[in-house]
Amino acid sequence: MAKLIALYSKPADPAAFDKYYFSTHVPLAKKIPGLQRYEVSAGSVNTPQGGSPYHLAAILSFDSMEAIQQALGSAEGQATAADLGNFVQAGVELLVFDSKEI
Amino acid sequence: MAKLIALYSKPADPAAFDKYYFSTHVPLAKKIPGLQRYEVSAGSVNTPQGGSPYHLAAILSFDSMEAIQQALGSAEGQATAADLGNFVQAGVELLVFDSKEI
Repeated sequence: MAKLIALYSKPADPAAFDKYYFSTHVPLAKKIPGLQRYEVSAGSVNTPQGGSPYHLAAILSFDSMEAIQQALGSAEGQATAADLGNFVQAGVELLVFDSKEI
Repeated sequence: MAKLIALYSKPADPAAFDKYYFSTHVPLAKKIPGLQRYEVSAGSVNTPQGGSPYHLAAILSFDSMEAIQQALGSAEGQATAADLGNFVQAGVELLVFDSKEI
């Protein structure tokens, strides 16, 4: 498998963020070819010690890094990436990597 | 489900890091009660644009945040957390959150 992790920093207006994210961004992202599983945080994103800088975390699973590269290059992937500018208020960190279960 | 994500910053000595991580830290972590799935990055951790500050990413899955809290409080969880000091050269970011598939 391979993963795309998105870590969204805490927005000034969490309600507006959540509304846009779930009603518009997620439906766009779910059209990305090759997407196998889409998991999002439910409730707060914390460290073991307490609060974190992040409002929401998403883990998108694909078959391989090649599949992620194809997904990011697709029209649907490009539209999803472009949509980030419509609702990300305080930054997002995107990480991609091949993964294995151990 | 619930997730614990560990993001390890790039160490000065990646070979030493990897040797300790896979031979000692992973076996310790796999003893943590309630751990359902342990995924690690295979190869480099990148952003869609290129390199990232991270050497390795791990995603540990549990049934719930309650299970993560119990896991972190267990003797095995405490031993795994204490072991971080034995090999983390450049910092690790730990994030915990309840998650749902959408």
